[in-house]
Amino acid sequence: MLAEKIKKHLQKLEQKKFRKDFGEFIVEGIKGTAEALKSDFDIALILIEGKRRDENEIKKIILTAEKKGIIVEYADRKDLEKISDTETFPGVLSVVVQKEFFIEDFLKEKNIIALDAVNDPGNLGTIIRTADWFGIKKIILSENSVDLYNSKVVRSTMGSIFHVDILRVNDFKRTLEKFKKENFVINSLDLNGESIEKMSFKDKNIFLFGNESHGLAAELEKFVDKRYTIKGYGQAESLNLAISAGIVMYKIKK
Amino acid sequence: MLAEKIKKHLQKLEQKKFRKDFGEFIVEGIKGTAEALKSDFDIALILIEGKRRDENEIKKIILTAEKKGIIVEYADRKDLEKISDTETFPGVLSVVVQKEFFIEDFLKEKNIIALDAVNDPGNLGTIIRTADWFGIKKIILSENSVDLYNSKVVRSTMGSIFHVDILRVNDFKRTLEKFKKENFVINSLDLNGESIEKMSFKDKNIFLFGNESHGLAAELEKFVDKRYTIKGYGQAESLNLAISAGIVMYKIKK
Repeated sequence: MLAEKIKKHLQKLEQKKFRKDFGEFIVEGIKGTAEALKSDFDIALILIEGKRRDENEIKKIILTAEKKGIIVEYADRKDLEKISDTETFPGVLSVVVQKEFFIEDFLKEKNIIALDAVNDPGNLGTIIRTADWFGIKKIILSENSVDLYNSKVVRSTMGSIFHVDILRVNDFKRTLEKFKKENFVINSLDLNGESIEKMSFKDKNIFLFGNESHGLAAELEKFVDKRYTIKGYGQAESLNLAISAGIVMYKIKK
Repeated sequence: MLAEKIKKHLQKLEQKKFRKDFGEFIVEGIKGTAEALKSDFDIALILIEGKRRDENEIKKIILTAEKKGIIVEYADRKDLEKISDTETFPGVLSVVVQKEFFIEDFLKEKNIIALDAVNDPGNLGTIIRTADWFGIKKIILSENSVDLYNSKVVRSTMGSIFHVDILRVNDFKRTLEKFKKENFVINSLDLNGESIEKMSFKDKNIFLFGNESHGLAAELEKFVDKRYTIKGYGQAESLNLAISAGIVMYKIKK
């Protein structure tokens, strides 16, 4: 039986407010937990479905956790159903400590993705996963976006949340100003920009994306140095945000 | 008050079984309904929240519907909450008649996207929207994929479901055989293919994508003529399906 105290703590972590208060978040699944263990994130607790403890992949997790001195707890299905927000509990769940990143490390980077007011958890998670694929190591995320530690975001990163550094900023405008002072070129997508074929990757670049429905906020437009367009041929009004960001990241690394 | 019969019909359309039986599907929102009205899809019914009938955009829809002889019904919020699966009813909802497409028209096309066992409604909807953006007009969809008329799929197409022809096939293998006989080259993505930079768009092409977790089914691999890779640089195991398809479509039209 899982202690009542732990159960309550895990339930609280489903809410943004408590994730912030505790500085923790939940990662579900074998793959996510394995990635957490390989990373330099601290893990507060690993929770395992008791009757699956002899499965090979899960045994490996338990062993690694023990070596690292991480607490492992066991629970039965009844307890787990109250905690997990997926219908089929994936056998393993970890409580991971949120990691703080610093702007200094970002200022040394060459290509950075910056996201303002991103709403859809799937979009944010997919952008993080895609950044990881293309070896883009830094993302700036405005605080008025969906919570980075929302379970859907974490799930759709497929473990990449442990590979990409994400700087969460309250004052997005001042952050952009700071990067501009440090000679970053601010690029955005737009329906009337130059062709994306002409995008230059010589400079230090920030690639800026706004909200899914409203695009880039008017107050951010003034920071933009270069506007590019992914040419459309059909009747769709726009590309999905993650697709646009994906094509830009593909171009960066091509 | 909305007639009980209509209410029941709309509720049934939330289920795949009844969508199939009736040959209809629901599109929510002003934008979706406007796109349906512009398209050559038949609309069985348009449902409007009574107290919003004087809004400009909605008045336009009512006028167009009347001109086309489409039934318009009015309902109050209480009725609508039982029907719509979004929390905030978007004022307008249409019942659209499913459209049948024929393989003959597909055989004349140059670039076709073919999707087998796609599971995630957001991925399918986003791929349709992206195809529309890049002017790719034909998609083949296996019947073991998520239902095309699932409300999340329809919503995430953002109206593009009315611009892209989608051929749903039971026997995906025989369909691929047919296209091969007609000199289509079957292309797929893979971790060990040639660089996507070398992808050729001279021939008649099918770009084949499989399931999100399991990739292309083994039994489909033998149809593949050319395998390409979108090179990765980080630690992510794979790209999201819609992102991969998006990059391929971008390359097609570049």
